[in-house]
Amino acid sequence: MSHLSFAEAVAADLSAVRSRAPLVHNITNLVVMNVTANMLLAVGASPVMAHAPEEVEEMVGLADALVLNIGTLEAGWIDSMILAAKAARMRPIPIVLDPVGAGATRYRTLTSQRLMAVAPPTLIRGNASEILALDGASGATRGVDSTAGSDAAWGAAGRLALQIQGSVCVSGPADLIRSSETDGGFRVLNGDPMMTRVTGLGCSATAIIGAFAAINPDPTLAAVHGMTVFGIAGELARQRANGPGSFAVALIDALANLDTPTILERARIVRQV
Amino acid sequence: MSHLSFAEAVAADLSAVRSRAPLVHNITNLVVMNVTANMLLAVGASPVMAHAPEEVEEMVGLADALVLNIGTLEAGWIDSMILAAKAARMRPIPIVLDPVGAGATRYRTLTSQRLMAVAPPTLIRGNASEILALDGASGATRGVDSTAGSDAAWGAAGRLALQIQGSVCVSGPADLIRSSETDGGFRVLNGDPMMTRVTGLGCSATAIIGAFAAINPDPTLAAVHGMTVFGIAGELARQRANGPGSFAVALIDALANLDTPTILERARIVRQV
Amino acid sequence: MSHLSFAEAVAADLSAVRSRAPLVHNITNLVVMNVTANMLLAVGASPVMAHAPEEVEEMVGLADALVLNIGTLEAGWIDSMILAAKAARMRPIPIVLDPVGAGATRYRTLTSQRLMAVAPPTLIRGNASEILALDGASGATRGVDSTAGSDAAWGAAGRLALQIQGSVCVSGPADLIRSSETDGGFRVLNGDPMMTRVTGLGCSATAIIGAFAAINPDPTLAAVHGMTVFGIAGELARQRANGPGSFAVALIDALANLDTPTILERARIVRQV
Repeated sequence: MSHLSFAEAVAADLSAVRSRAPLVHNITNLVVMNVTANMLLAVGASPVMAHAPEEVEEMVGLADALVLNIGTLEAGWIDSMILAAKAARMRPIPIVLDPVGAGATRYRTLTSQRLMAVAPPTLIRGNASEILALDGASGATRGVDSTAGSDAAWGAAGRLALQIQGSVCVSGPADLIRSSETDGGFRVLNGDPMMTRVTGLGCSATAIIGAFAAINPDPTLAAVHGMTVFGIAGELARQRANGPGSFAVALIDALANLDTPTILERARIVRQV
Repeated sequence: MSHLSFAEAVAADLSAVRSRAPLVHNITNLVVMNVTANMLLAVGASPVMAHAPEEVEEMVGLADALVLNIGTLEAGWIDSMILAAKAARMRPIPIVLDPVGAGATRYRTLTSQRLMAVAPPTLIRGNASEILALDGASGATRGVDSTAGSDAAWGAAGRLALQIQGSVCVSGPADLIRSSETDGGFRVLNGDPMMTRVTGLGCSATAIIGAFAAINPDPTLAAVHGMTVFGIAGELARQRANGPGSFAVALIDALANLDTPTILERARIVRQV
Repeated sequence: MSHLSFAEAVAADLSAVRSRAPLVHNITNLVVMNVTANMLLAVGASPVMAHAPEEVEEMVGLADALVLNIGTLEAGWIDSMILAAKAARMRPIPIVLDPVGAGATRYRTLTSQRLMAVAPPTLIRGNASEILALDGASGATRGVDSTAGSDAAWGAAGRLALQIQGSVCVSGPADLIRSSETDGGFRVLNGDPMMTRVTGLGCSATAIIGAFAAINPDPTLAAVHGMTVFGIAGELARQRANGPGSFAVALIDALANLDTPTILERARIVRQV
């Protein structure tokens, strides 16, 4: 597969998201619900948030992907995540897990590991600290921000991918995506440092990956394509931004307006052996 | 009443909202709290969010309108909504219900119907799928988005209005407003398709109707006037927007800056027999 | 200390926030979580939100400041706030309390007073109505908006400061900051009326004071410096704004871009005897 064909596949999947408008069911944290919903709408998906045990299974029955995000955990929400994840595996629809702050507190690390054990996700997306924490490293996360570069989590990502028999995305200056099926992986080099200055963009990346996983049966490619689209939108947004406030606004515009020529020109996806 | 006098009544009510700054008490969903509060501030109202059973009745005692929105239901929140709605009917102040996602899950449909039975709202605003679901149609809602045009819910809106002895607004490309008191209704033709690309704008429309209901004792006119103001602001925002991100920002600006000449020029309200 | 040296101290503390990126742990309300996190990122701090009793103490163990905000109270959240506040006092790290809506309902007033009694905050920031309510005045708050000018709360602020053996900030057209250690206090005259038209900016001010308290051991100066930075950013944002929507965006940009010459030129801090 040539570099160009990677970019063409990204563009094809973005078109598929826009034409099919997959319903992405999010059980996510209280900080990012609004921005996540807007990012999903901008990319062409249809977001829904529902966390009550009385309805999560029925909502999963309508959904094309399930996104679980542990950013502001509560006991009741964990129960709902498990109900929803089990229902998602029965259908099946892809599950994407965002282990926000794993490694910062035991509660977050253990909850992520419990979700991985009880109803393994198809995909995990986290920063390097979070992925390292899920792999058993300690003290790696400060609050919800990474203290390590993404390459430091290359090995951990591979082990976690094997454990869940799925794919793992480590986001950072370079996004790494590894699969349980091959030894190597992918690096996505798109993005902009300003993306770390707006809250909830990691969480939004996870949700966007959910939208792509809804239309692409290969979770590794779903993550590669979703991260590329989001990264390119970030690069375009930077050109219109005066700071993180206007950047966040421009990022939504850029996601909504992203076209195939721009993807073909800008996509920077590298296969790593 | 001529077309012009409809527009004059809209402008008069917007002035009343701005001068009286009604306190609108929202028990609403986690996704839209921030944008709803900002839209209420932009239109000139004073928003407050409170959902604890320990305080909702006391907060209703201070409020000029109560807005109930079931977008991210939990059992405890339903109890608080009922407490608040009963207190609102005692005072009385208007209650506006937004049955987000009714029809998507039984929990949402049944909760909406329970609220309508226990403490009927003065007004309901939903998309066509939600209104059809409350009227007993099944399978009409996909997540929180409508699968039907607003005209398909004309009859359902009339029946629901009779049931609650109030008014029902079906939002869509044309907004329909029906009342329990007459056979016909109103169509508001203002708005912009971009309004479906930003999360929480339906919920914000509901809250804005709450602000207008606080200052206009006729719930049908409150809905007509609120939807007209919001729709015109959407049209103006579209002129400044590069996409849904900048549209959302421009919409808040447009609401805050909307003046009488613009309302008189743009209002498109039609009485439907 | 001359007027210029006040401004120099503001600039020095902003540099310290940016270089140390203090972790600010927020247990805050559902309306403002996103905007608060973005404001903290813009000023250079690192925000984290966590409210589960299972993890708040551990998160406090990582944090440099704790911010408690009662804007959308629930019983379980109060328990978590108390756990977190006790842990914060043990370490110790500064605690900043925002008594949103105190005076509007007894639940909010009593919860604020309970927090002050069980684990007194280092700092309180509220509007005049809220500060008056905590001092025992009744009927002062309408929803979450003040019905009094900040000067009306000068005496109340001094008494509360003594009670918590810390500092109290009354925000308004002039921000007043009083301490338990001296009779007088400070007035910060920076800011813009548009700041009252965007939801969550009072709450964001509280969080920013938390960031400054994390790097300045004197809570009075932390409040003075934080309010000055936020107020100047508001003035700069007003120059780029067409309304409250674009104002909120420009405010985040302005916070992120604020430099020392602008602080030296614009800071308006007055010592009040």
